[in-house]
Amino acid sequence: MKSFFVILFLLSAVELEAWRPTTPFLGRLARSSPQKNGGAAQFETRYFRQRLDHFSFADLPDFNQRYLVGGADGRWAPPDPIFFYCGNEGDIEWFSDNTGFVWEIAPRFSALVVFAEHRYYGKSMPFGSKEEAYKDKKSLAYLTTEQALADFAVLLTDLKQNLSAVDSPVVLFGGSYGGMLAAWMRLKYPHIAIGALASSAPILQFEDIVPPETFYDIVSRNFEQESSSCFDYIKKSWDVLEARGKHHDGLVRLSRKFRLCKDLNNTEQLSDWLSSAYSYLGMVDYPYAANFIMPLPAFPIKQVCKRIDGYPDGSDIIDRIFAGASVFYNYTGTVDCFDLEDDPHGLSGWDWQACTEMVMPLSSSKDSSMFPSYNFDYSTYAKDCFTEYGVTPRPKWVSTEFGGHDINAVLKKFGSNIIFSNGLLDPWSGGGVLQNISDSIVALVTKQGAHHIDLRVSTKDDPKWLVKQRDIEVKIIKSWLSDYYQSRKSSF
Amino acid sequence: MKSFFVILFLLSAVELEAWRPTTPFLGRLARSSPQKNGGAAQFETRYFRQRLDHFSFADLPDFNQRYLVGGADGRWAPPDPIFFYCGNEGDIEWFSDNTGFVWEIAPRFSALVVFAEHRYYGKSMPFGSKEEAYKDKKSLAYLTTEQALADFAVLLTDLKQNLSAVDSPVVLFGGSYGGMLAAWMRLKYPHIAIGALASSAPILQFEDIVPPETFYDIVSRNFEQESSSCFDYIKKSWDVLEARGKHHDGLVRLSRKFRLCKDLNNTEQLSDWLSSAYSYLGMVDYPYAANFIMPLPAFPIKQVCKRIDGYPDGSDIIDRIFAGASVFYNYTGTVDCFDLEDDPHGLSGWDWQACTEMVMPLSSSKDSSMFPSYNFDYSTYAKDCFTEYGVTPRPKWVSTEFGGHDINAVLKKFGSNIIFSNGLLDPWSGGGVLQNISDSIVALVTKQGAHHIDLRVSTKDDPKWLVKQRDIEVKIIKSWLSDYYQSRKSSF
Repeated sequence: MKSFFVILFLLSAVELEAWRPTTPFLGRLARSSPQKNGGAAQFETRYFRQRLDHFSFADLPDFNQRYLVGGADGRWAPPDPIFFYCGNEGDIEWFSDNTGFVWEIAPRFSALVVFAEHRYYGKSMPFGSKEEAYKDKKSLAYLTTEQALADFAVLLTDLKQNLSAVDSPVVLFGGSYGGMLAAWMRLKYPHIAIGALASSAPILQFEDIVPPETFYDIVSRNFEQESSSCFDYIKKSWDVLEARGKHHDGLVRLSRKFRLCKDLNNTEQLSDWLSSAYSYLGMVDYPYAANFIMPLPAFPIKQVCKRIDGYPDGSDIIDRIFAGASVFYNYTGTVDCFDLEDDPHGLSGWDWQACTEMVMPLSSSKDSSMFPSYNFDYSTYAKDCFTEYGVTPRPKWVSTEFGGHDINAVLKKFGSNIIFSNGLLDPWSGGGVLQNISDSIVALVTKQGAHHIDLRVSTKDDPKWLVKQRDIEVKIIKSWLSDYYQSRKSSF
Repeated sequence: MKSFFVILFLLSAVELEAWRPTTPFLGRLARSSPQKNGGAAQFETRYFRQRLDHFSFADLPDFNQRYLVGGADGRWAPPDPIFFYCGNEGDIEWFSDNTGFVWEIAPRFSALVVFAEHRYYGKSMPFGSKEEAYKDKKSLAYLTTEQALADFAVLLTDLKQNLSAVDSPVVLFGGSYGGMLAAWMRLKYPHIAIGALASSAPILQFEDIVPPETFYDIVSRNFEQESSSCFDYIKKSWDVLEARGKHHDGLVRLSRKFRLCKDLNNTEQLSDWLSSAYSYLGMVDYPYAANFIMPLPAFPIKQVCKRIDGYPDGSDIIDRIFAGASVFYNYTGTVDCFDLEDDPHGLSGWDWQACTEMVMPLSSSKDSSMFPSYNFDYSTYAKDCFTEYGVTPRPKWVSTEFGGHDINAVLKKFGSNIIFSNGLLDPWSGGGVLQNISDSIVALVTKQGAHHIDLRVSTKDDPKWLVKQRDIEVKIIKSWLSDYYQSRKSSF
């Protein structure tokens, strides 16, 4: 995988002593893809002026938050509902393109659809430009989850007033980090939204709430279930790579073999690049061809393993590995050379978030993982963050602010109307809520689902379980809305 | 009453065009009183290091938050409960002294008691001293409610870990603004506290959620029910004061009449001083002698009206008014002259809070109020705040962040375990939750209760309804705890 600290050594050529896992969230490779959501999304782009710090009165400049509005085929009229997507760590148009489910079901509810961009991503930049916003820790200081939630709360409150829609119920949607935001928003701002569909939201991937090995164990299991030889080749490849790198001319030869645009400085760069591919493959192992993170065929892990396994006995393991990675990085066959530094987000905001609040410990088990083994070590993590940004992470803050420990007991009598949907192929499902907490805080778990596949636009190739999952989601959302309208009626 | 903008004209001698009501919260006259809570409070004083801004990573100095720990007669052992008082706008020892109920019931629950001081009050000063903390809007910027709640959340999380008490349930307590904090804390941090007793918490006194006239209407009704002539004398007195002030030497003569230490600049100063007395009398009209804001007799409004009514027919109305006010300001008879500028809190933090987040509109009805009539006007309010602090208030923020509109519908299916207790004598009860919202979010309303009387230590003079109210509170808290322990048992 592209390590979390990829930036660190790309920029400063600091020697990483060993490969280290990180949080391969979506923002990393986020770019607007040409694939649209079945043509459903007709939207306007608008901007809303936000405070930089909602929780203090420090003198700071406002910034413009981008949001997209559309849906309902123009039939929306208050108190018809508002469907609100909680933007995560990337360009909001990209999320809109890959969240066709919301656009698709909106007309059935006569719902207005709003996709709100997360501060410090896409075009929602404080201080006027990305360059200024990402300049240093002083300018990045307000890139926090609570500020993003407050942005949503203020935007929604203002929108509803301006649209004379104070009685319109709001339903929240979000996937991945956006799903975490949707769930937390419902918990923290129940007066603003009546319910949340939080898809693939690893809200428990903090501190020691879940074991840190689950992420890489799940990816590994996916590969192993596809082909145990494929799993074995990958697991063996790391030592081979390292050994080859130590040869005279080893790094140059590896660079040629992998058709890299620039020669390697160390083998960890290559390990990162390969691990990143496998991790993302674990996330987007969809049952049809899709272009979310990369253009990929249906069941891409199957294709990767086909290539890896397909070489004749006695072939070089490195040839196998390169062929497998090419499915991820070059499925279209148009890449001349591979650029390890390719990162459409540059100094990605997620890296800052991971170095401040979003400390999600990931380890790689010596036994069950096909990745290089690694034990998460907080002090090393904190040291690297300090070197990179001059900040010290707050590893306990997320669970102090949003909870997570003992979540079943806490929310059994508190809170309502949240769907936690998870596909068990998704490596992030290990940090998700996989069991019903109460009658109205429910878990929808699919065995064959990958990273928030339920939020994607429907296709003719959708398997039955996915069609059924979406039907259940629609039904639950309908029940929230009908409860809401019923209680309004009875109070007048 | 001491107007909210008292500071404004005291410091800069700006002419107030008219008397203006404000939010006479407790901090205004808060000082540590010698009256202790029945000797129950044996506590240690400790300090905890807090971030100044929990919601950003701006480089700011930490500060030390004071808290008091004690209770349970040393019998506490985890998982015995923790009773946590959410400190409000004043010195925490003063609140501890006046919240004997918590200390008194703690041993029955083997509960550890913690009283946490609110940032920027008492000894919990950022920037090293009160002078530095209150220097200007830059230093005051972090005096906000959300930061105070986050202080409590972080303190409790750390305390529980350090005391090996992660399984100890926390019950929150608070009165007045502290009651608002307790309720909001339970809503925002349900994973940290299992329930809250929010006494006299006017969480609905924002925007247009309740009519702005209730506060002064309730004070006025209290006086009118005591004596309609008393009410009439007070209602008539304002015009008389104003007219006298316009006489040649009028202000000097009024100053003599009221035995002021310094001569008046205008009659509004005097109106403020008198209104403040009546408002506080409305709040602390307890059925026994007490020394919360001032040393006062039992049923002080009765005593005030006795004095006002007691003069022979034809007496000067101003003599009556002075005699009435003296019950409040000089019950002990030890005051030589009255200092209108007397404000133990100086540039009070509550004034800042009212000028930023805590915009609680108060009007005084021409018909039903005995105070000078006044219509709350936001633009004037905002202008005055800007003049005073250089800040623009955020009048919609509290209800965006914490809710308030349509609270019955919102919380009917969301949230649990909050007691809203209110006494109908208390002028703040107009902004309180006076009806049950659900099975576990309940309203305890007493006809004869004043401002959070239930939180005071028991006395031999407690009326039956008060004894009963406290019994119910204890019973409800017991049920929260037994639910909690039960669910823990079943999960092991």
